[in-house]
Amino acid sequence: MTSSTLFGGIEAGGTKFVCIVASGPEQVIEQVRIPTTTPEETLGKTIEFFQPFVAARQIDSIGIACFGPVDLDSDSSTYGFITATPKPHWSNTDVRGAIQSALNVRTAITTDVNGAALGEFQWGANRGCDPSLYLTIGTGIGGGYLVDGKPLMGLLALEMGHIRIPHDFARDPFPGNCPFHGDCFEGLANGPAIQKRFGSRGESIHDDDPFWDVEAGYIAAALTNYILTLSPKKIVLGGGVMAREYLFPKVRRKVQELLNGYVVHPSILTDIDGYIVSPALGNRSGSLGAIALAQMT
Amino acid sequence: MTSSTLFGGIEAGGTKFVCIVASGPEQVIEQVRIPTTTPEETLGKTIEFFQPFVAARQIDSIGIACFGPVDLDSDSSTYGFITATPKPHWSNTDVRGAIQSALNVRTAITTDVNGAALGEFQWGANRGCDPSLYLTIGTGIGGGYLVDGKPLMGLLALEMGHIRIPHDFARDPFPGNCPFHGDCFEGLANGPAIQKRFGSRGESIHDDDPFWDVEAGYIAAALTNYILTLSPKKIVLGGGVMAREYLFPKVRRKVQELLNGYVVHPSILTDIDGYIVSPALGNRSGSLGAIALAQMT
Repeated sequence: MTSSTLFGGIEAGGTKFVCIVASGPEQVIEQVRIPTTTPEETLGKTIEFFQPFVAARQIDSIGIACFGPVDLDSDSSTYGFITATPKPHWSNTDVRGAIQSALNVRTAITTDVNGAALGEFQWGANRGCDPSLYLTIGTGIGGGYLVDGKPLMGLLALEMGHIRIPHDFARDPFPGNCPFHGDCFEGLANGPAIQKRFGSRGESIHDDDPFWDVEAGYIAAALTNYILTLSPKKIVLGGGVMAREYLFPKVRRKVQELLNGYVVHPSILTDIDGYIVSPALGNRSGSLGAIALAQMT
Repeated sequence: MTSSTLFGGIEAGGTKFVCIVASGPEQVIEQVRIPTTTPEETLGKTIEFFQPFVAARQIDSIGIACFGPVDLDSDSSTYGFITATPKPHWSNTDVRGAIQSALNVRTAITTDVNGAALGEFQWGANRGCDPSLYLTIGTGIGGGYLVDGKPLMGLLALEMGHIRIPHDFARDPFPGNCPFHGDCFEGLANGPAIQKRFGSRGESIHDDDPFWDVEAGYIAAALTNYILTLSPKKIVLGGGVMAREYLFPKVRRKVQELLNGYVVHPSILTDIDGYIVSPALGNRSGSLGAIALAQMT
């Protein structure tokens, strides 16, 4: 535990790094957005941003919610590295080590989606719900599952976006676009898969297009599997695809249909509007989650 | 923690109760099998069996691995009850309360599959592997997932046997036999579903029947989903269907095919024979798991 009340947080994304100094959502002292170019430039500017706060002893720990794949095994020789990423220049980058050695502060690193889960757990939509699940459905699909307030780690970090679900071939002949699995959940339902079907971004497709029923069906099938396998007390759905609020009631109704009364709990049977919800922190879940992570360090 | 070195364990099944007094697999002092008839008779005989050990102060805690559904919410007014079961006489039976009040010992209760998971974790095939998964594929399909050595509990106990997986309609037009979900994993792959397809028990079907490829495919799809969602460090497969050892290599190969190199870990890529394994305690996983549970109490 730190003695400081302020913390550093980095939401390290593939497009931009959001760096903040804060103690919570209402107390964000300073914030900067740094474009993700090369590791040298981006990490250099990140370090530069935090330097004065460290020098003034205002912060002594920094949390990092990082795009991946990230090595999260603290026993590994590449702990805290971005490993093999398609993003140019970033494969094999020691993100955590670079921050720690330049600033000489305590650091902790997790995945971007675990970061968002932590932010929402501390201050947002799944506050105090343990265990709970944060799922992002956007360019990629990924889940952060918290048990005892910490991201669950097993053999590796979770990769629940890639589960197999029934493919609705009759209404949706699209073969899926996952380079590893074709029509896994991510391959059927992520943003690029929607764009590939229509030749245009999902935002341009009307709410009344019958495709949204198919999309909601895939999301509901995956949520059904997560509910049966993880039994979270709350599910927060973020990401670009879920910015279409119209999808929420459709997904909730289909989850109830698929479970068909089997999971006998008010959260499913009657209170599902409060069970499957949007993020409360909007696009700040990740950066604030990095603050929550720093607090735990 | 108890001061005794001996513990009571009850594997409370729908056909029989196995009651043991033991400190581990090599030290089983006494054992009895009691047919599951009415709660009065079966619980009465169970209490009778343990009575002398309690009177002699040889045991002061009893673990119960119970058929379900069981209410495991310790805040609930029906904690430790079998709730709505199709088994005649047993709905709304306070199993834990009956044992505790008659014998005045500490008691703990969990599901039968969590019990088997605990037994194998303490003394068997997934010893020391945390988190780990025990899956039974028999009359029913259920999973016990241990995190920090304890069965994961969320909103309710896990019900991962009922996840949706792709249904291989081309090779398997069978509609599934789950009364809630039709062709969920359990509805496609449990023992009764096999029997319904062939009109005879699975044991009578030859190893070279092409159906086993279909069955192995369903099991592998489910395991793939559990690996991506739970990332266990070991998977133990028990239950009557998995008594056919011939299925193991088929399932392992199909899991590798379905993951297709995406989960980059030696346990999947090269050492899968030691990753997806049979129970080491045979049919004693559950009763010994009840002992492990008593030890934790």
